[in-house]
Amino acid sequence: MGLFSKDIATLDDLFVHTLQDIYYAENQITKALPKMIDKATAPDLKAGFELHLRETEGQISRLERVFEMHGQEPKAVTCPAIDGIIKEANEIAGDVADKAVLDAALVAAAQAVEHYEITRYGTLIAWATQLGREDCAAVLAETLAEEKATDEKLTAMAESKVNAKAELAHA
Amino acid sequence: MGLFSKDIATLDDLFVHTLQDIYYAENQITKALPKMIDKATAPDLKAGFELHLRETEGQISRLERVFEMHGQEPKAVTCPAIDGIIKEANEIAGDVADKAVLDAALVAAAQAVEHYEITRYGTLIAWATQLGREDCAAVLAETLAEEKATDEKLTAMAESKVNAKAELAHA
Repeated sequence: MGLFSKDIATLDDLFVHTLQDIYYAENQITKALPKMIDKATAPDLKAGFELHLRETEGQISRLERVFEMHGQEPKAVTCPAIDGIIKEANEIAGDVADKAVLDAALVAAAQAVEHYEITRYGTLIAWATQLGREDCAAVLAETLAEEKATDEKLTAMAESKVNAKAELAHA
Repeated sequence: MGLFSKDIATLDDLFVHTLQDIYYAENQITKALPKMIDKATAPDLKAGFELHLRETEGQISRLERVFEMHGQEPKAVTCPAIDGIIKEANEIAGDVADKAVLDAALVAAAQAVEHYEITRYGTLIAWATQLGREDCAAVLAETLAEEKATDEKLTAMAESKVNAKAELAHA
């Protein structure tokens, strides 16, 4: 969006802009996940990231469906939030020496990504509903349910295994 | 953290690093909130942001307590995630022409901030517990409860008033 123009005049404009923002974010996530799969050591975590990569591809298709339902071409606008979250994930991954500690850091990084998606889809569903687009809201709600399930799976994995293994690492 | 050194060797190092990350984030949030208070129009939203600014100051003191309990000096490390989330909030605020639509955008931006804090405090509590620092976990859990309550209040405000007002805006 231009710095000198105020392009968003209505709630509908804001809804479309935020669809474009999360469309960009999901596409960046599909680029970040293969690196996280490479770095992960615990087989469950690797498998979890692989599943999430396939889910993310499905979420992108769902967003394209919502764009179409709403009479818009799919378009991405740069989303500094996801760029920052992914940058931080890469930085921390580069700073961790031990593989088990790196797994704990990767879970935390993935949960930061999930929470960004959870908040944006929650907002999009509320706006779609307000705009009378329950059809779009229903499609977006499928993705929100997936994101919440992924976040819970990551918490369970961290608390049952990953963090305990990380604690065994010694300097 | 240095790009060419791997400074994080243990889960304890990762815990301390993430405390420093959220300490930076909370401080950036205290700088961002006054601008959001200025921009908000709905009196409830303005009041909500003012309350959250005071809460954030208390959360910073709580983090300083956790640093001390853990034998560390409070220190901030740059957190690209919160920088990105705040940058995005400022950009979107600059792009919205209508005051009621701007309020809807501000609620969404504040919820993105809340969700970043929710995920980081959730992770810190799990790591503190793993490290046998239930005392630190208990202090961090007070903040997590506040962040979740703030997020729920923002959802309620959006769904009961802010989004409906925003929908009345016409290009």
